[in-house]
Amino acid sequence: MRAVVIAIGDELLTGRTLDYNSHWIAKRLTSLGIEVSRIVVVPDREIDIMGEIKRCMNTNTDIIITTGGLGPTPGDITLDALAKALRIDLELNENALKMVKERYEQLFMMGYIRSKEITPDREKMARIPRGAIPFYNPIGVAPGILLPFRKESGETIYILSLPGVPSEMMYLLEQMMQFISMRLKGELIRTREITLEIRDESFVAGILSEINKKYPGVYVKTYPVGFGEKVLMRVIVMARGRDPGKLDRLITEAIEYLKKRIYEVKDNL
Amino acid sequence: MRAVVIAIGDELLTGRTLDYNSHWIAKRLTSLGIEVSRIVVVPDREIDIMGEIKRCMNTNTDIIITTGGLGPTPGDITLDALAKALRIDLELNENALKMVKERYEQLFMMGYIRSKEITPDREKMARIPRGAIPFYNPIGVAPGILLPFRKESGETIYILSLPGVPSEMMYLLEQMMQFISMRLKGELIRTREITLEIRDESFVAGILSEINKKYPGVYVKTYPVGFGEKVLMRVIVMARGRDPGKLDRLITEAIEYLKKRIYEVKDNL
Repeated sequence: MRAVVIAIGDELLTGRTLDYNSHWIAKRLTSLGIEVSRIVVVPDREIDIMGEIKRCMNTNTDIIITTGGLGPTPGDITLDALAKALRIDLELNENALKMVKERYEQLFMMGYIRSKEITPDREKMARIPRGAIPFYNPIGVAPGILLPFRKESGETIYILSLPGVPSEMMYLLEQMMQFISMRLKGELIRTREITLEIRDESFVAGILSEINKKYPGVYVKTYPVGFGEKVLMRVIVMARGRDPGKLDRLITEAIEYLKKRIYEVKDNL
Repeated sequence: MRAVVIAIGDELLTGRTLDYNSHWIAKRLTSLGIEVSRIVVVPDREIDIMGEIKRCMNTNTDIIITTGGLGPTPGDITLDALAKALRIDLELNENALKMVKERYEQLFMMGYIRSKEITPDREKMARIPRGAIPFYNPIGVAPGILLPFRKESGETIYILSLPGVPSEMMYLLEQMMQFISMRLKGELIRTREITLEIRDESFVAGILSEINKKYPGVYVKTYPVGFGEKVLMRVIVMARGRDPGKLDRLITEAIEYLKKRIYEVKDNL
C-alpha cells in the first residue's frame, strides 16, 4: 500500500504554522505498514489541490490523505477541489448534516456559540462528494470525509480528507484507518452513536465492561465532549464481521442493555 | 519571485525525522518577500527527485531549494538527480574540492577523523553540475550548491541544493540568498576566505571594526571552527558592487591590512 499526503493551507507555506500533521501521518502510516511515497504542501488554491489529486490518479497510489480546508469559510475549498478533480458532484449528505447539527447543538448547550442555526456556511461542511462517507468529528465540527474512488485501472483508491486541527485530524485518521483495514479484509464495520448526559464518567466504565463481556465482537468507545456541570458523553458502539444483519442486531442489543443499566442506576447520573 | 522547496530523504517519509527544514525555509523566504508555492517531500530515489525538478521547469518557478542528499554515501543522490533532470554533466569543481579538502584537514587537526585523505566517496561531494557555484560549509563538509539555470523560456531559475543537517542548511541558505539578491540587483559579490589560528577571538573583533571603518563596502565575517587549545577562525571577506576589478583590489587591501594588524599584535595570538 502506498500513500500520498497532501497538506493544504497558505499558513504552512508562509511558515506561520509548522506542518506537524504530515509528520504524524507519515509516522502512523509507516507503523501500519503503509509506505508514504510523497508529502506535498499546497496553498488554499483550487488548481493546486486539483493538480495534486490528479497526479495521484496516474501513479501507483492507494491512499490519499488531505489535511485542512474542510471548515465553513470560503477559504475552505478542499472538497470542492477534490470533487472537481475527480468529476464527482458535491451533494448534501444526510448523515454529515446530522453530525454537523449535533455538534452545533452541543456547542450551543455548552455556551460556546450563540446560535445553533444551520446557516448555509455551516451546512457547507455537509456537502461532500457523492459516494463519500462522513466521519463524526467529536472535537471540532467538520466531519472527516472518506471517499473510496474507483480509478480507471479498476483499482480502488481511498481518499481521506481530514481537518487541519491536529487533534481532530489524529482522531479521524484513526477511525478511518480502522475502517479501511476492515474493508480490505472483506469485513464490514457497523457503528451507531448515542450521546448521554452524565455526571460521573467512571460509573459508565463499569457498564461498558459488562457489555464487552456480554457481547463479544462489539466494541464500545466513549468520549467526553463537555465539561463543567454538564458532562456529555459520546458513546460509539461498533461491531465488525461479515453479516450486516447480525452486526445491526448485536449493536441494537448492546445499546438497549446500556440504556437499561444506566436507567437502573440513574441516581448516579 | 516564487519558490518550491523539495525536501529529500526516506527518514522524512517514515516519520523518523520531522521536516523542520522546510518550515524554516518557508518562514525565511516569506520574510524576504518570496512566495513559497509548494513544499514536496520525496524519498532518496532518483526518479522522484528528477520528477519534482522537471515539474518546476514547466511552471512559474524562480527558485528551487532542495535539502538533503549531498553527503558522501551512495544514498546521497541529489546532485546526480539534479544533473540528469536538467541534462547537465557533473564535473569535479576545483573550488568545491578545495572546500572539501580544507574541511577534512580541519576535522583531522581537531582529531575528529583519522585520515584526511580525499577518497572517491569524499571527492564525490565536489562533483557538481557544470555551471554550479559551490558554497563553503563551515559546519559539515558537503558544500552547498547554487545552480543558476537558464530555462527554455529564457528566464533564469536558481536551484539551491542544501545539506539536510539543519545548522548547515540554515547557514548556507543565508549565504546563497545574499548572493541571489545581489545578482538580481545587478551587483556582483566577491568573496575571499582565509583561516587564522588564534587564541583570543575577541581580540580579532577590534581589528575587524578597524577594517569596516577603513574599507566601506567591505564586509568581514568570522566563524570560529575549532575549540580547545587551537582556535581556528574562518574569515570571509566580501565586497559588493558593479566593478569586479575594484572589488578584488578592495578585498586584497583589506586582507593585507588584517594580516599586518594581526602581525603587529602577534603576541596576543
